[in-house]
Amino acid sequence: MSRRLEVIGIEGIPEIRAGDDLVALFLNAAAEMGVSIEDNDAIVITSKIISKSEGRVVSLSEVQVSEEAMKIAVDTDKDPRIVQLILDEARELVRVERKIIIVETRHGFVCANAGIDESNVEADKAVLLPEDPQASAVRLRRAIEERTGRSVSVLVSDTFGRAFRNGVTGICIGVSGIPALLDRRGEIDRFGKIARITKEAVADEVCAAANLVMGEFNEGIPVAIVRGTESVLKRCESDIREVLFSHEEDLFR
Amino acid sequence: MSRRLEVIGIEGIPEIRAGDDLVALFLNAAAEMGVSIEDNDAIVITSKIISKSEGRVVSLSEVQVSEEAMKIAVDTDKDPRIVQLILDEARELVRVERKIIIVETRHGFVCANAGIDESNVEADKAVLLPEDPQASAVRLRRAIEERTGRSVSVLVSDTFGRAFRNGVTGICIGVSGIPALLDRRGEIDRFGKIARITKEAVADEVCAAANLVMGEFNEGIPVAIVRGTESVLKRCESDIREVLFSHEEDLFR
Repeated sequence: MSRRLEVIGIEGIPEIRAGDDLVALFLNAAAEMGVSIEDNDAIVITSKIISKSEGRVVSLSEVQVSEEAMKIAVDTDKDPRIVQLILDEARELVRVERKIIIVETRHGFVCANAGIDESNVEADKAVLLPEDPQASAVRLRRAIEERTGRSVSVLVSDTFGRAFRNGVTGICIGVSGIPALLDRRGEIDRFGKIARITKEAVADEVCAAANLVMGEFNEGIPVAIVRGTESVLKRCESDIREVLFSHEEDLFR
Repeated sequence: MSRRLEVIGIEGIPEIRAGDDLVALFLNAAAEMGVSIEDNDAIVITSKIISKSEGRVVSLSEVQVSEEAMKIAVDTDKDPRIVQLILDEARELVRVERKIIIVETRHGFVCANAGIDESNVEADKAVLLPEDPQASAVRLRRAIEERTGRSVSVLVSDTFGRAFRNGVTGICIGVSGIPALLDRRGEIDRFGKIARITKEAVADEVCAAANLVMGEFNEGIPVAIVRGTESVLKRCESDIREVLFSHEEDLFR
């Protein structure tokens, strides 16, 4: 059997508000496109609509700016209210330079601005990352499985920049149903040698593939189905924290 | 029109030797599978088979180990001959620790072991990255276009580790025909705000998607076709060096 994947962008999902039933809106939009959910579909959902449905949208005018945030705002030439939100979401500052604040978030992700985003939201508002994107992935997978009767996986995606290479790519901040890392230790290569220690960050690759159809600004395509992963990825319990280095393992901090 | 991508792993390409006609072997294997090349196909080829066809395979027994390589080999607990090859391919050492040597290659890529690989090659041999993977991408694109009469793009892929996240992902080290970075500056988001400066590393995302069907050890699938990118990616002259930071831009060196 040949190895094929299909990546299907789901259009027609309306603007999301706090409390919306994301799963119903996704399933309706898919049905409207004539796309039915199949067993082993990997359903990639951008963190932004999950955050919006969970009410993780902040009015900047209501942010109380601390002295620390004001100082960093001056140093970095950023909005002090955004800096305050970044500090609230961060457990460690990784790099602070003009226009740039890279932190480790409470969840353990190293990213710019703690993942806080002012695009695709009303003026004067900002969207935070979901409170617990790993828990969101589990909850959404269960809800989709209940309503469709299919076994699926759910990946919560975002776009992060990288060290050493310019540009952002789709990455995973929550995964349920397929592994975050595919462990190839001990596999034998084509010449009979035992493979070195290599893990493939498959959840990130699935989210990168999905990001190609979503577009950076989620141009009305906040969900994509990646179909065909079952030839490579076995169903399993999983947790995106598998991809996070401990401080000791991290070569770049 | 809906946004869909298809990723097709091409099986049946034989073990590659120096001087082999990669394009003919790829086109034969695709035809054997009943896959014909279409306009706008993005053809992702692992660097390893390009290196092999270009004769970039080294016998470790013929490597002359310098004093510097021997010292680093002792410090890192690595094969001195591999260390010598890494030094030959590097223009800067980025991190040197036990079992780990991260360098900037002559091409400008920051990666472990200068991309040198001992898997899927005969014992006592190692595969170097292509001499100039960007030039390889251009040459292979032209050859495929000439023989098929189709307008395609070619991406040379490898798998690199990342800072801050465990696991390797497919990335691009040479691209011809689609952009390396998709520039979204000045685009207007759904709420009428001008987007921040954001570039999407689309060539890396295409290679990540392809890597899902290839598998980390190229399990007999060293080429994949990514079909459907034309709804997002316009044909253009391109160069993977667009994704490389200058030293001044690089926050992590």
